[in-house]
Amino acid sequence: MSIDLTEETITAEVQKTFDGAVDERTREIFVKLVQHLQDFTREVRLTGEEWFTAVDFLERVGRLSSPTRQEFVLLSDILGLSVLVDQINHGEGSATDSTLLGPFYVEGRPHAENGADISGGVPGMPLFFTGRVLDSAGEPVAGAHVDTWHSDGEGFYNVQQADKLHGELAMRALLSTGGDGRFSFRSIVPRYYPVPTDGPCGEILRAARRSPMRPEHIHFRFHAPGHEPLVTMLFRRGDPYLERDAVFGVKRSLVADFVPHEAGETAPDGTPMTEPFQTVSWVFTLERG
Amino acid sequence: MSIDLTEETITAEVQKTFDGAVDERTREIFVKLVQHLQDFTREVRLTGEEWFTAVDFLERVGRLSSPTRQEFVLLSDILGLSVLVDQINHGEGSATDSTLLGPFYVEGRPHAENGADISGGVPGMPLFFTGRVLDSAGEPVAGAHVDTWHSDGEGFYNVQQADKLHGELAMRALLSTGGDGRFSFRSIVPRYYPVPTDGPCGEILRAARRSPMRPEHIHFRFHAPGHEPLVTMLFRRGDPYLERDAVFGVKRSLVADFVPHEAGETAPDGTPMTEPFQTVSWVFTLERG
Repeated sequence: MSIDLTEETITAEVQKTFDGAVDERTREIFVKLVQHLQDFTREVRLTGEEWFTAVDFLERVGRLSSPTRQEFVLLSDILGLSVLVDQINHGEGSATDSTLLGPFYVEGRPHAENGADISGGVPGMPLFFTGRVLDSAGEPVAGAHVDTWHSDGEGFYNVQQADKLHGELAMRALLSTGGDGRFSFRSIVPRYYPVPTDGPCGEILRAARRSPMRPEHIHFRFHAPGHEPLVTMLFRRGDPYLERDAVFGVKRSLVADFVPHEAGETAPDGTPMTEPFQTVSWVFTLERG
Repeated sequence: MSIDLTEETITAEVQKTFDGAVDERTREIFVKLVQHLQDFTREVRLTGEEWFTAVDFLERVGRLSSPTRQEFVLLSDILGLSVLVDQINHGEGSATDSTLLGPFYVEGRPHAENGADISGGVPGMPLFFTGRVLDSAGEPVAGAHVDTWHSDGEGFYNVQQADKLHGELAMRALLSTGGDGRFSFRSIVPRYYPVPTDGPCGEILRAARRSPMRPEHIHFRFHAPGHEPLVTMLFRRGDPYLERDAVFGVKRSLVADFVPHEAGETAPDGTPMTEPFQTVSWVFTLERG
């Protein structure tokens, strides 16, 4: 290594220190990372004070991060990196488009039977979801695991209000498709909501004068033997934030009709309803793999 | 914002969300940051698993970071970013070259008189340092504040061994130059040492099969009214790690002779020495500003 490094020669010298990396992929990733981080630093002529601000910012993101507050995931989301990684790894195909997992998925969700009410008793307008899972040849996928989770009518997930819900897992469940590939559940209508803005990522959104809002959506995660897993969401057609999602997660192919019904109509499961409700139906396609 | 984003169009769409930033500098920094982060992600075709590894890595860096363990600073150091920021902001000039502050500077260091022993009683080979601070016209700078700090003979700073040293601040002091611009202190000879490798940054060094070693050095930080501050280090000529510093901080102009002396010789302060010792002298130049 030279000890006469200049602003121009340092990049190649740092890259050379990865020549002996344990594998070629590690070398490639760090060589490109050093190139882009240093190009960025040179192009903006980063000051020492700005560098310190960045270090302090990352330290604060780290301090806030926990299993239920994934601030680094949020940072990746608001910079469009999470969606880009999804785009790179799930290209064009016959399967339903994928999108972000988001920070509110949790492992310990309750199993539920098809047709069950998964709202956990949280008050809200009833929503009846009926789905069907097909493979790329149009054949029903039986026994597929279907994770679903969504916010309440005020835009909060149960993990954000553990106190209020006494720790119960609500508005989320693991279902399985029947022999015809169908699954269904009853829950409550979700709502658009802001990503958390009380942490460092909120500072970026305020400095950019960006909206923190995400349009209303329901999350789904599918696992079925012999098929590629699928992580996706359905968004409500007509949502005011559809074209300005704070995390760039909306795809046209994932916009669904959340159909409004009046009190007095009958729910898809045959329940005579005495209050207004909504219904959503969707066919999901899994890639064989 | 389009809801038909592709791998190619997403970058411009994310950049557009910074159009309304509170000031032009904020906009510029985020537009370039998004460009380079997304170019990096596309060029290496980052997988979902690698993205997750990166998020997990950053979370662990954050958890380890504290006032005495600045792992994000270390990450910036081993990727050559810290030195680059220094190069960008301290170009060619008549002043002494600057280099990294490093993670071991602390605010609460004791004041010391010129000639004082600042070793804090830590055992080691005596070292006598005599310095002079001039301005760019060659005039002595009187009353300049001189911070200095260095490792012990095993390569450890006092903040890394709070237990052993009973919390005393050793091998660091704040001095002032006299009317002739001179300052001096007695301490012990430092030693080359590895950057901390027991955290996430150690994983990068091991994956790259890179040496974690820094060559032997003494830190200095100068503040004087009417002059630009200066953060620098002096490195020992002949050090085996001079040309492979883990954090790229060595500059040829900052390599100094650490002159060895035998027992029986007289120290610069007139002390007759009964053991071997070293002497270092240096003239530092501050830019007027």
